[in-house]
Amino acid sequence: MEDYQKGHDVIVVLSAMGKTTDELIAKAHEINPEASKREMDMLLTTGEQTSAALMAMAIGALGVPAISLNAFQVPMHTTSRYGNARLKAIDTERIQHELEERKIVIVTGFQGINRYEDYTTLGRGGSDTTAVALAAVFHADACEIYTDVDGIYTADPRIVKNARKLKEITYDEMLDLATAGAGVLHNRSVEMAKKYGVTLVVRSSLNNSEGTAVKEEVDVEKMLVSGVALDKKAARISVMGLKDEPGIAFRLFQILAKNNINVDIILQSIGRENTKDISFTVQEEEAEEVISLLEQNKTKITAKEITCQKEVAKVSIVGAGMMSNPGVAAKMFEALYSSGININMISTSEIRITVLVDIKDGERAMKAIHDAFELSE
Amino acid sequence: MEDYQKGHDVIVVLSAMGKTTDELIAKAHEINPEASKREMDMLLTTGEQTSAALMAMAIGALGVPAISLNAFQVPMHTTSRYGNARLKAIDTERIQHELEERKIVIVTGFQGINRYEDYTTLGRGGSDTTAVALAAVFHADACEIYTDVDGIYTADPRIVKNARKLKEITYDEMLDLATAGAGVLHNRSVEMAKKYGVTLVVRSSLNNSEGTAVKEEVDVEKMLVSGVALDKKAARISVMGLKDEPGIAFRLFQILAKNNINVDIILQSIGRENTKDISFTVQEEEAEEVISLLEQNKTKITAKEITCQKEVAKVSIVGAGMMSNPGVAAKMFEALYSSGININMISTSEIRITVLVDIKDGERAMKAIHDAFELSE
Repeated sequence: MEDYQKGHDVIVVLSAMGKTTDELIAKAHEINPEASKREMDMLLTTGEQTSAALMAMAIGALGVPAISLNAFQVPMHTTSRYGNARLKAIDTERIQHELEERKIVIVTGFQGINRYEDYTTLGRGGSDTTAVALAAVFHADACEIYTDVDGIYTADPRIVKNARKLKEITYDEMLDLATAGAGVLHNRSVEMAKKYGVTLVVRSSLNNSEGTAVKEEVDVEKMLVSGVALDKKAARISVMGLKDEPGIAFRLFQILAKNNINVDIILQSIGRENTKDISFTVQEEEAEEVISLLEQNKTKITAKEITCQKEVAKVSIVGAGMMSNPGVAAKMFEALYSSGININMISTSEIRITVLVDIKDGERAMKAIHDAFELSE
Repeated sequence: MEDYQKGHDVIVVLSAMGKTTDELIAKAHEINPEASKREMDMLLTTGEQTSAALMAMAIGALGVPAISLNAFQVPMHTTSRYGNARLKAIDTERIQHELEERKIVIVTGFQGINRYEDYTTLGRGGSDTTAVALAAVFHADACEIYTDVDGIYTADPRIVKNARKLKEITYDEMLDLATAGAGVLHNRSVEMAKKYGVTLVVRSSLNNSEGTAVKEEVDVEKMLVSGVALDKKAARISVMGLKDEPGIAFRLFQILAKNNINVDIILQSIGRENTKDISFTVQEEEAEEVISLLEQNKTKITAKEITCQKEVAKVSIVGAGMMSNPGVAAKMFEALYSSGININMISTSEIRITVLVDIKDGERAMKAIHDAFELSE
């Protein structure tokens, strides 16, 4: 509102209110547990339209002209896939016209239309993605994401009491933090922001505090480590007794890839009698499916035994400064060793180090690492 | 469903569920009592989309392919006026395509889009109008209107216990019955059905009974009187002491017409001192507005006094056979006289006679007339 009054053009992207989407899904499942995804999207898109219309009325009540637009009115073109479509193109004409009439334009997030002129929804993080895409096509100064936290912290402030809010963070760090379990922004919206160079600002919808900017380069000297993330929803799958011959690992992971399962840390070790064992982590909610897929293909992948361990947690540190500082991993492991925490598996990327620990050690590990890198200053 | 299984094409038009529309209106008024009509329509149209999507899922659960379409998807073109638009044109291509794929097509009633690509709603009786319009453009065999009563009765069966359900009734009789207060069908949908020769069948959504057909000509010999209607929501306005000169009545009714107020029975009588009095009835809910309009224009219309009487009821008989049977009015008046009921005002059309009585006499008048014409057989 302030921005509008300063003369800026303002586009607002809204998701459905509170539990609306969950309630609609529950109602649909009651009627038809196998309802078509096309009709699910037809149903769910009413949620954003409702909140957009009510928001336009609320802004109107303040004496500021506002107009709500749904995916048909923009229009917001997506791929055809119901329930998980991708944005393809956004027509700017209608929005531009309304902006020129000095209206605040309220756009329904999360939804689009496909080439059949049917509603689609964008899946998880959909409204953020809509906002970033609009910011990109309208060359917006910034894209503010209003959420229930007031920014990105060096660690989850509910667990690490002295966690510090970051003023800025790079896209890559944000992506790695999200993958590592920090649930503020969905990867898709960050990836799109990175691609189109849209500066994101993560802010609270409840207070007016400054938030965290997510951008390509951060102004201050790159911090060694920007944050620590904890993901308790990991599961470790071990596939044992595999034949030690080429192509076995490829077959195994191809099965998972075909079923859209993201695999994280992978560890391969030599087993007994000329065999090898492969362990990897997946999201806990996908563990059952993975086990069932692998059991079906047990012969094909020459596995003797498949086990699943859910009492594990991933602890990650993320920082763009890590690349040029070889001592970071050592410092992290030292912090864990000093606290008597055992490391099960390790995985690293250029700007991230993740360790797998017992779930009981997760929070303690996070705090120890946060202290070791003096993230609270 | 039966019709579909017999190989017929089926288009279903749905309104919003139960109290949805009222709840949405209440929510909007809470946020902004003067919300723009454009945003109200944006909000209200979610109601039909929700019920259409859920219905498609419910039919899908029975193993029958179904698809829901909203006003954008049909598209359903209307005039620009939000809250009370008129249908202009319906594109048949998309619906035709879905019918050819042997799907049951569920269309959102009550809504359309205007030339700005904004949602509009059709006002009262809107979903019935949508259904009749679709039946017209698709040359449907019949348009079934499912409602909470199972047909058109010779009188309101809640009041006249021995009222009889009519097998058939003409459009004109139906129109006069609706005007006279029988609230089953809205005039707009009947007028459209008459214009395009669409046979309507009024049926119950709760049971499978046969219902009443509304059409141009009824097969059986025309009944003298088809039904008796009672309207307790009338108000009598009297404007007294008007100058007895040309143009006064014209001025008065022009003011009301300009404000979209429907006037019913009109009575003009000679007052004292070379003046005249004009009385007429309006819908009770519009009485306040009428009084205020007339008070504002008191000088212009040369009125000395304006009074309003709300304790009145209109009782009407309707029947296509009336035209050629001069004794009908006399029989009606006789029935009222025998019951000691005083008639305040009278109005007649070719196939309707309406009398204004005190509200306390309304139900008794209805029963007496129903008996006099032996409508229960």
